[in-house]
Amino acid sequence: MKNYDIPYKTYLSESELPDKWINVKAFMKSQHDPFLNPATLEPCTAEDLKPVFCDDVIKQELDCTTPYIDIPEEIVSFYKMYRPSPLVRAYCLEKALGTPAHIYYKFEGNNTSGSHKLNSAAAQVYYAKKQGLTSLTTETGAGQWGTALAMATAYFGIDLTVYMVKVSSLQKPYRKAVIETYGAKVVPSPSDTTAAGRAILAKMPETGGSLGCAISEAVETATNTPNCRYVLGSVLDHVLLHQTVIGLEAKKALDKYGVTPDVIIGCAGGGSNLGGLIAPFMADKLQGKTDTDIVAVEPASCPSLTRGLYKYDFCDTGRMTPLARMYSLGSGFIPSANHAGGLRYHGMSPILSKLYHDKYMRAVSVEQTKVFEAAEYFAKTEGILPAPESAHAIKAALDEALECKRTGQAKNILFGLTGTGYFDLKAYMEYNAGNMTDYVPTDAELQKGFASFPDIPQNR
Amino acid sequence: MKNYDIPYKTYLSESELPDKWINVKAFMKSQHDPFLNPATLEPCTAEDLKPVFCDDVIKQELDCTTPYIDIPEEIVSFYKMYRPSPLVRAYCLEKALGTPAHIYYKFEGNNTSGSHKLNSAAAQVYYAKKQGLTSLTTETGAGQWGTALAMATAYFGIDLTVYMVKVSSLQKPYRKAVIETYGAKVVPSPSDTTAAGRAILAKMPETGGSLGCAISEAVETATNTPNCRYVLGSVLDHVLLHQTVIGLEAKKALDKYGVTPDVIIGCAGGGSNLGGLIAPFMADKLQGKTDTDIVAVEPASCPSLTRGLYKYDFCDTGRMTPLARMYSLGSGFIPSANHAGGLRYHGMSPILSKLYHDKYMRAVSVEQTKVFEAAEYFAKTEGILPAPESAHAIKAALDEALECKRTGQAKNILFGLTGTGYFDLKAYMEYNAGNMTDYVPTDAELQKGFASFPDIPQNR
Repeated sequence: MKNYDIPYKTYLSESELPDKWINVKAFMKSQHDPFLNPATLEPCTAEDLKPVFCDDVIKQELDCTTPYIDIPEEIVSFYKMYRPSPLVRAYCLEKALGTPAHIYYKFEGNNTSGSHKLNSAAAQVYYAKKQGLTSLTTETGAGQWGTALAMATAYFGIDLTVYMVKVSSLQKPYRKAVIETYGAKVVPSPSDTTAAGRAILAKMPETGGSLGCAISEAVETATNTPNCRYVLGSVLDHVLLHQTVIGLEAKKALDKYGVTPDVIIGCAGGGSNLGGLIAPFMADKLQGKTDTDIVAVEPASCPSLTRGLYKYDFCDTGRMTPLARMYSLGSGFIPSANHAGGLRYHGMSPILSKLYHDKYMRAVSVEQTKVFEAAEYFAKTEGILPAPESAHAIKAALDEALECKRTGQAKNILFGLTGTGYFDLKAYMEYNAGNMTDYVPTDAELQKGFASFPDIPQNR
Repeated sequence: MKNYDIPYKTYLSESELPDKWINVKAFMKSQHDPFLNPATLEPCTAEDLKPVFCDDVIKQELDCTTPYIDIPEEIVSFYKMYRPSPLVRAYCLEKALGTPAHIYYKFEGNNTSGSHKLNSAAAQVYYAKKQGLTSLTTETGAGQWGTALAMATAYFGIDLTVYMVKVSSLQKPYRKAVIETYGAKVVPSPSDTTAAGRAILAKMPETGGSLGCAISEAVETATNTPNCRYVLGSVLDHVLLHQTVIGLEAKKALDKYGVTPDVIIGCAGGGSNLGGLIAPFMADKLQGKTDTDIVAVEPASCPSLTRGLYKYDFCDTGRMTPLARMYSLGSGFIPSANHAGGLRYHGMSPILSKLYHDKYMRAVSVEQTKVFEAAEYFAKTEGILPAPESAHAIKAALDEALECKRTGQAKNILFGLTGTGYFDLKAYMEYNAGNMTDYVPTDAELQKGFASFPDIPQNR
């Protein structure tokens, strides 16, 4: 296939939309360690998870053997409102860089939630509706997950309460407005509506909140409200499963042109986007069919893979959730407030943690001024204003493409452009004004976070 | 073609992108009255326009005979970054309304400028570059045009100064930030950088500015700066010409399924979106091939077609531009500050004015609380948060679909969804909080605007 035969943007037809997710766990030779019930330190059963999560997603969470899982028709119908998403050949970027590399990106920002988060929101809300639930709770930090979930609950007709990190709800009133336009209730967290919130407020009345605290409030409300469950937008296995629609579409589009990516790059906060993008390619790699270089990009200010420990940890700062074995900075780690984008989570998807630990992928960390420099360059050349999260992947892709220019290699680079930056303009303004600084935690600061790991036997 | 054979979204392939714009004037039996030089009251010549506009767009502006005009390859390449735009079958909306109507919309919001404005920005900047110009000036109100132009100037490598209505630059700091991220200079207007700005500031030091005033500043700077021209984002014939890419794509996509729209609906401020959407359909209607019902939707607060006069008027409040015969409320008309969306321009495209005057299209006006009600309903059912401007068309399309429900008619309704509302959330917040009010100018208020028409012979 000649270079110029590949369009700028490839849209699959709606009939080519995946009708099954791919369960990467079914291709892994060894599984990640099981979630543990923090009270008993025994592996979590479906029964343990039932008060918090919907039945169908629990089944998916615990399924390590089914390689392909049907996407219900109702979810496919929802996907058709904004999917298939385009696979873009970055001709303009290649030309501007003067690189022999061929750069592709899968763009997930063409929907009102502004990111890939909608892929799992749609699925989780559908299963909740099917189960006869009447309301859901969640937390949101940057706001993309809250928006996505509000869109899905509006569509399927379920109530939603979003615990929004207080400082975010103040700094991003417009994010709050979008969520409310879709009919969801936004509660700035910590709030006096939960015991967890009241406890934190009593200790720290002036706190701006944190994602971990908002999770604690959302879980508490879900378990105390009849016909209500909690939904989470990243980290967990079922979320990664839903996000595999990204990678499946990308692979199908690339296959049309006979293109095999040499490098796949994605930003990694909780890991759902990266996990979804790489899933079908990773399945091939796990089966020894390919040797694709897979790269997780994380912020230098919150470096769970590159500087964290592979240990059992809580998923929230309130220490209410099951324990997950994952790369983590400790649930007590709080990233510097000067970090502008998302990707502030202390841990990393157990699936990705395991794949990283077993050396099926690598990780790099990037500093935020470099990330915004890449974001601005990308906006000017490709015409899309990226979310700061997505710009982490852009930065790594640019580095890879420039390395190709140096070596003369015409690698196929695929990266995930998870979303748009329309609600991150405060950060862009800081960058434009030259007021943005970098932050890299010292070893001593990391040690403080590590001290928050639960004191349990780690080798099981 | 069966109903369910039409996908939710139809994307043409890139090879189907139009390579010619359609010049609707070449199909009109009689032309709109010529622009007049305000000094001589003689029809404007290309020479008159040369100090202000680029040579190629002047040629397009004055061309009433060439039915199809080539789109240069460089512009087609730019279009490929975000076009073809999807034609969406609004299945979710139809179902929610319970209407037998088939509703289609052409969605122009999937690009960072957030609207159709980029279609003309790309063209105008390309021609400027080709002519060897080094800088451009423009004005922006809501900010979509300024953003679009900043994207195009970043791509083609030309400097840009945007005179942004001062109140907008204060109310929409994030819009300003996007424009600056693309490397353009934003000057809140009125400013002390121009004689026009200084004159207004001397008279009204506290003014928040107006679009008309920003136009005056941009034109003055363009004419006083070497190798600089002024570019305008609506109203003029060449802008409508560039926007015909919308209608041409829409028609090609509908033709694939054998669908002929019975009604075409678009919001109308300066008229470029509506003019572009309807162009190929109007060409058929002008040739007697169809009798499509074509509807312009304007805000009740700024009703140039439904309550204005068809007279020669200035295009700016500073009275520096050529005179255009158009439906206008008078260049001195200032719409109520309580109007949240765009569509605040006092006049209307001369082409659309003529077509309306000759009864080839009709116009309706809608009140803003009804517009936001429609916007919210649309967001919840179709998953896209519309710009307030676009929501005017949504409101009229909903009314049409509900009328079909009453009568049982299965009409094909096509409307233009010009853009997204990510930068209009202040207005959505007002609406969510129940603080939004309607405003309809009284006859006496309209008379004040009418008093600002230039005192020249109107019948030529």
